[in-house]
Amino acid sequence: MRLTRRYRFAASHRLNTDALSPQDNARLYGKCNNPFGHGHDYVLDVTVEGVPDGSGQIVNRDTLDALVNTQILARVDHRNLNVDVPALAGRVATTENLAFAVEAMLKERWTLPARLARVRIAETPRNTFELDTQ
Amino acid sequence: MRLTRRYRFAASHRLNTDALSPQDNARLYGKCNNPFGHGHDYVLDVTVEGVPDGSGQIVNRDTLDALVNTQILARVDHRNLNVDVPALAGRVATTENLAFAVEAMLKERWTLPARLARVRIAETPRNTFELDTQ
Amino acid sequence: MRLTRRYRFAASHRLNTDALSPQDNARLYGKCNNPFGHGHDYVLDVTVEGVPDGSGQIVNRDTLDALVNTQILARVDHRNLNVDVPALAGRVATTENLAFAVEAMLKERWTLPARLARVRIAETPRNTFELDTQ
Amino acid sequence: MRLTRRYRFAASHRLNTDALSPQDNARLYGKCNNPFGHGHDYVLDVTVEGVPDGSGQIVNRDTLDALVNTQILARVDHRNLNVDVPALAGRVATTENLAFAVEAMLKERWTLPARLARVRIAETPRNTFELDTQ
Amino acid sequence: MRLTRRYRFAASHRLNTDALSPQDNARLYGKCNNPFGHGHDYVLDVTVEGVPDGSGQIVNRDTLDALVNTQILARVDHRNLNVDVPALAGRVATTENLAFAVEAMLKERWTLPARLARVRIAETPRNTFELDTQ
Amino acid sequence: MRLTRRYRFAASHRLNTDALSPQDNARLYGKCNNPFGHGHDYVLDVTVEGVPDGSGQIVNRDTLDALVNTQILARVDHRNLNVDVPALAGRVATTENLAFAVEAMLKERWTLPARLARVRIAETPRNTFELDTQ
Repeated sequence: MRLTRRYRFAASHRLNTDALSPQDNARLYGKCNNPFGHGHDYVLDVTVEGVPDGSGQIVNRDTLDALVNTQILARVDHRNLNVDVPALAGRVATTENLAFAVEAMLKERWTLPARLARVRIAETPRNTFELDTQ
Repeated sequence: MRLTRRYRFAASHRLNTDALSPQDNARLYGKCNNPFGHGHDYVLDVTVEGVPDGSGQIVNRDTLDALVNTQILARVDHRNLNVDVPALAGRVATTENLAFAVEAMLKERWTLPARLARVRIAETPRNTFELDTQ
Repeated sequence: MRLTRRYRFAASHRLNTDALSPQDNARLYGKCNNPFGHGHDYVLDVTVEGVPDGSGQIVNRDTLDALVNTQILARVDHRNLNVDVPALAGRVATTENLAFAVEAMLKERWTLPARLARVRIAETPRNTFELDTQ
Repeated sequence: MRLTRRYRFAASHRLNTDALSPQDNARLYGKCNNPFGHGHDYVLDVTVEGVPDGSGQIVNRDTLDALVNTQILARVDHRNLNVDVPALAGRVATTENLAFAVEAMLKERWTLPARLARVRIAETPRNTFELDTQ
Repeated sequence: MRLTRRYRFAASHRLNTDALSPQDNARLYGKCNNPFGHGHDYVLDVTVEGVPDGSGQIVNRDTLDALVNTQILARVDHRNLNVDVPALAGRVATTENLAFAVEAMLKERWTLPARLARVRIAETPRNTFELDTQ
Repeated sequence: MRLTRRYRFAASHRLNTDALSPQDNARLYGKCNNPFGHGHDYVLDVTVEGVPDGSGQIVNRDTLDALVNTQILARVDHRNLNVDVPALAGRVATTENLAFAVEAMLKERWTLPARLARVRIAETPRNTFELDTQ
């Protein structure tokens, strides 16, 4: 049994790597490399897997929400992913890298009885990234 | 190849367990324990898995709909999950328990050539429960 | 210029009027008259109309949210509309009547510089009620 | 008869006014004043009003799309609204002000037979701004 | 007070007018003129306006549904708009013309106490047509 | 890590097999067998699986889009699936068969570093077909 709980955050980012010249960055990332950045309303789906306990629940919703608020939303919501998020320091602010960072930040304090099974981030309604976690 | 077919129903429920005192129920379930209940527009996704036959279909849509209507929707739509649904008797009316009940009610009369692969219930747009069925 | 801000609440209700016999209630309201009620995830859109001030805003979002939380959501979210909402006492718990009640509750404490222009409640994705307010 | 055509763009912004101190900006705009900005997937609905011609259409879709692409999307999509959009220079980058700017940019080159009737911008799924145009 | 009730239908169409040459049709309608047609999942919103009666309702939902089913859905759902719909005979199968046809078909049998106020048809999520009716 | 990228196309089709009589086709496919066809706004989700490279991306979005445009959208968008799509010749135009055809057309020219993991097509919001690809 899996529960997927949905969260939202608004953030800005710019795709750019120091390893390439400005021209190559522009070629590689297109308009996502525009110099002053842009942003998205990200949708984060956190999936936990487990067996309901006597309360009929896999996980207490308030406990999960508190963890996601502290570990993720307080750090990325209404933030600039290139500047404000230490977990992305030195990495390109793609949603691939953001998904790995979200997984790491959740695991850092994960004490819930249910297992973290999947992190999914929709960057836009057209673009969704999904990571099965161990 | 899997087909997921979507159904909707409106129901009310209250989360409460006789095993706990009123105070502990309120602490555990928060506003979901409010005494007179509340409700949701549940979204039920039924996934079947199989190989298309000569008609080019895994499963006949009318046959699947008839089964879901009889076994599920007629029992839960515009109902109170705590009072009206025998399959939940003696169990807390969480969506975890509802998903197990839906699986059991579908299997009770399942005669389709395709396999029932997954039951997924969205309690709200933020809260989705998923059960892989054997 | 109008700003429409969206809120959500989950509630249960039953459509029934003391003016009719049980048979006539069942005929009039169909499954919405089922004895133990059902529920919905209501979507409430509050529209305000005005001219942006020096801050570039028609209305401060936090001020509007605080008003809607106190006057509406605290009274209807995770509640039974037939029992828990004094503004609906003696009235059938249709979404038409709920929309009038929401308008009245908002106006009771409305001190915002922008005008309340419209109250819209979606009872389900198929059923939306809209009230232009004066 | 009105046709509403939907467009999308991703942009970043920060709410801040030079008329106030940093402390007052933070108080007024809350997390929207965070120093390095954030972003959204904006949804732009352009409504035109008119009478269908012999082609059965109020307006040619390609002509309308070309105008919106040139006048709006090329200027705001994957951009920073505070820095990249001359029409917002000297104004706070609220969606109220953006809606006025979009109206002005559309009218600058409007030669369609149908009338521009409304500009609507959803900043997030919770926050929509609507401007009836003359 | 207005109630908007949502219906869906799937239909095919081809945009083409006998008044023009094949080349001019292709230029005017683009890929919508492809010879063998294409299709959409249309969303129809019917808005009625009135005052709730003693039942707390502007209009009985079953009565409205029965009318829309008979007058509209039975004629357009899973149909080819160019061939199957007499109300569109001799007219280009644009959604502008379809909206006028829907209005006419509804009024043909309208005996509800509430006034038909608006017909809105979304041809796709990007393209919505709206007609205020008298 | 998986990326799912969403595409849309509008197409018409009719479900009918030469192996059956007209009466049996009508019985089997119901209104989907109506003689002149109907249509849908199909939603295609293409999932690729891989490891981000130095650019922080599993796959270059422009490269994937170019492939899907050439191999799929140019062949099915604004087309009649029964007549216009060679990959469906001699097969019933169900979405099951369309999903297999999409998989084959993508693999025909797949040279991306990431693996094609899944093809999912929503025929309508109620009906989704999913194919894990090898």
